[in-house]
Amino acid sequence: MARFFMAGTNLLGGTAIIRGRDAEHVRVLRLRPGEDLVICDGEGTDYKCRLVYADKEQAEAEVIEVVKCPAEPSVKVTLLCGLPKGERVDYIIQKGVEAGAYEILFFDCNRCVAKPEDPTKKLERWQRIAEEAAKQSGRGIIPKVGWAGEFHDALDIAVKKDLGLFMYETGERESLNTVLDAHKDLATAAIITGPEGGFAEFEAKLARLCGLHVCSMGERILRCETAPIVALTATMYATGNLA
Amino acid sequence: MARFFMAGTNLLGGTAIIRGRDAEHVRVLRLRPGEDLVICDGEGTDYKCRLVYADKEQAEAEVIEVVKCPAEPSVKVTLLCGLPKGERVDYIIQKGVEAGAYEILFFDCNRCVAKPEDPTKKLERWQRIAEEAAKQSGRGIIPKVGWAGEFHDALDIAVKKDLGLFMYETGERESLNTVLDAHKDLATAAIITGPEGGFAEFEAKLARLCGLHVCSMGERILRCETAPIVALTATMYATGNLA
Repeated sequence: MARFFMAGTNLLGGTAIIRGRDAEHVRVLRLRPGEDLVICDGEGTDYKCRLVYADKEQAEAEVIEVVKCPAEPSVKVTLLCGLPKGERVDYIIQKGVEAGAYEILFFDCNRCVAKPEDPTKKLERWQRIAEEAAKQSGRGIIPKVGWAGEFHDALDIAVKKDLGLFMYETGERESLNTVLDAHKDLATAAIITGPEGGFAEFEAKLARLCGLHVCSMGERILRCETAPIVALTATMYATGNLA
Repeated sequence: MARFFMAGTNLLGGTAIIRGRDAEHVRVLRLRPGEDLVICDGEGTDYKCRLVYADKEQAEAEVIEVVKCPAEPSVKVTLLCGLPKGERVDYIIQKGVEAGAYEILFFDCNRCVAKPEDPTKKLERWQRIAEEAAKQSGRGIIPKVGWAGEFHDALDIAVKKDLGLFMYETGERESLNTVLDAHKDLATAAIITGPEGGFAEFEAKLARLCGLHVCSMGERILRCETAPIVALTATMYATGNLA
């Protein structure tokens, strides 16, 4: 079913007035009066609506049912990724949203090759990728995409969650299964993954000192754009959010 | 550590003679005598070697240790994917190999938009993507990429495995957790996923009639290139192959 986020919508009583880009989208999809669509408030609530009329500038739909969006996971997972180069960022955002991330934040660290002068300039484009993926996958929110800052800023965000995972390729690590099995009823979690060159040893040490769980995902070396999606999927599976 | 598959190698006694493309690769990597590399036989065994000499045509390395490749999962998972369009195929191959697939086969079905006249023409390129990903992620085999044929051929392959999963977006389905929890000690498994438009209802019905487990991955709609990776990752996690 066609899915819209609230941005261009006014919900007045039992009627949704759709304007702007979303009205245009209704037209492009050739939705006809009597057909159903979902308007999501971006905070986990879905308004199931039936189209009453649509013209170039505006569409009107009748609200039939208000439900909690069933696609939203019970755990809010923040992905924190060492900024990779180019397309890998887009990939992490698109697949991260599909796989259920609550928010996706990038940071700079020791081995980051990509050093945008001002990453905040990219935020608008990144956020559009997230919105597109959220619509397509039926999410109840548009996950926030943002810039976390430096490595220590990422640690600071992660330690405030119920569970903080730091994915690392070598040395002493905990098994992801053991850690996730011990945290079934999470409300929030953070997953930190590195850039192309991985993390420096001192960064893993700092993460451990801060109380994060330094974890392995087995002996296969995952690309920097694959690791966050694999770790997120494992977390979703372990917390019953992939069923 | 630099990693090579056997193709261009002769192992004679305790010495590896590297020729052709691999010898060229040794040169490109600027490996020097005394440096270590791994030569994998493509059947799960790693030969840890030390470079003795390298010139344009040939390199010679001394075998130091022979070990079972630690990156190979205990379960051999066959991904069976309804053929998607263009780049999505490449993506499934690359990420599938990283995430631990044993083989990746594509098939034609009711809603396949991509209808290559002769998919076997693409096999060489697809196999190269798998080889590249296998090297990069440290796999002990080069997963086979192939053409399974029609939908019924895919079912035929899947029913011969210890566990056959059919990922479906709607209707009556089993929970992936329940099914995987009941199959911890798998030797082989198959995961069937659909093309862009998903599966037709009769296809899901056929899969169920054949004894496959028709499973849900939750309410988020996954793209056709994301679904096999998410299902594979869940299977790897549930069978202890992500630790």
